[in-house]
Amino acid sequence: MDDLVMEYIFLLVLVTLLSVMQNAFFAQKVEKEAHNGKTAAFERLVCANRNCMDMYPTFLAVMWCAGFCLSQAPAAFAGLMYLVARHKYFIGYMGQTSQSTPGFLFGKRVLSFLFLMCIIGILNYLLGTYGGSDYKEYIKTITKAASTLLLLP
Amino acid sequence: MDDLVMEYIFLLVLVTLLSVMQNAFFAQKVEKEAHNGKTAAFERLVCANRNCMDMYPTFLAVMWCAGFCLSQAPAAFAGLMYLVARHKYFIGYMGQTSQSTPGFLFGKRVLSFLFLMCIIGILNYLLGTYGGSDYKEYIKTITKAASTLLLLP
Amino acid sequence: MDDLVMEYIFLLVLVTLLSVMQNAFFAQKVEKEAHNGKTAAFERLVCANRNCMDMYPTFLAVMWCAGFCLSQAPAAFAGLMYLVARHKYFIGYMGQTSQSTPGFLFGKRVLSFLFLMCIIGILNYLLGTYGGSDYKEYIKTITKAASTLLLLP
Repeated sequence: MDDLVMEYIFLLVLVTLLSVMQNAFFAQKVEKEAHNGKTAAFERLVCANRNCMDMYPTFLAVMWCAGFCLSQAPAAFAGLMYLVARHKYFIGYMGQTSQSTPGFLFGKRVLSFLFLMCIIGILNYLLGTYGGSDYKEYIKTITKAASTLLLLP
Repeated sequence: MDDLVMEYIFLLVLVTLLSVMQNAFFAQKVEKEAHNGKTAAFERLVCANRNCMDMYPTFLAVMWCAGFCLSQAPAAFAGLMYLVARHKYFIGYMGQTSQSTPGFLFGKRVLSFLFLMCIIGILNYLLGTYGGSDYKEYIKTITKAASTLLLLP
Repeated sequence: MDDLVMEYIFLLVLVTLLSVMQNAFFAQKVEKEAHNGKTAAFERLVCANRNCMDMYPTFLAVMWCAGFCLSQAPAAFAGLMYLVARHKYFIGYMGQTSQSTPGFLFGKRVLSFLFLMCIIGILNYLLGTYGGSDYKEYIKTITKAASTLLLLP
């Protein structure tokens, strides 16, 4: 499309591409393990991969909506944090020793943050349309500052 | 992005957020059941969750395309109907008694409606571009009326 | 949305609709086989369907990003090639005789091509914004020519 649109989405596209690369990495690990037969390690990798894939459309939808509704920089940053959380999750499953198996869900904090961004963005749009006041600039600044809080462990 | 774009997508974003909340609800149910060990109820919940998740990207893609190609209000309404159908489907699986298990597919009528909206929208665009006549306003009115038919059981 | 936007996405929407139809076809095959009980053929169909569905959001994300970042015609064409590859893959699983079972991954070449389109599109945007020169027209022509290479077996 136009460069005008690209300005608003190129960070989101970058994070999406990163997530696609991560998917390919996961799939490759599963493929590699499949050659060793149906071992316990294979079963666990398949399970981890499935949990990641189950959440993937949800993640993409929330990230893009947050990027459209409010602003792309915090959304892309949160997306990046989610990818890091997902990587840790997958690695946790890969360990040979049956260490504390991670749960079904992960990255809940990041997804909640993105979800909140969407809601604030929509509320802001409705206020701006029907109420007359527009706080988008203030909210964007606050969101950018808040997104760094995701770095906390 | 701009508020100009927001005008055309905020209902779709709302339905997407609702669907994300529903996904989280489903995942929580599965997570909760997982603590009870691998019972038959757990297996069935996992199966229901999987079927829902398998159709999720298809649903999102069709809803957003329908919203872009024709108009967002009927698309968002149909999306809402789909979420209701999905909820009923999941609840049907959750029942302790092995009642008539729902099939693999669900919400076929809603998805077909959204699919049809996309096709009409594209045909209308092609006609408007190469034929010179634009029926978009008429079609929008008809679609809005037709979407209420989805309420019929 | 506007017809202005439709001009840039209608081919992508068409390919998305085709992929949705293919999903429905796959789901129907599985549903049909499920009535025969849990046979080996059913297990294989479920497996094929799962692999296809696991890659589906990745495919959609990459195709739409490539369409937005560079140009829609080659992206839609590559998407079409992907659907053909997926069909062959599914059919390969359906065969009664346990012929050489296809692997976990498929359509890698097409996805790599779309991935490359995204990266070139983003690089081009960044160059155009910060460097001052814009090669989009040249790249579009080259991409269109390159996309026909996907037809090679």
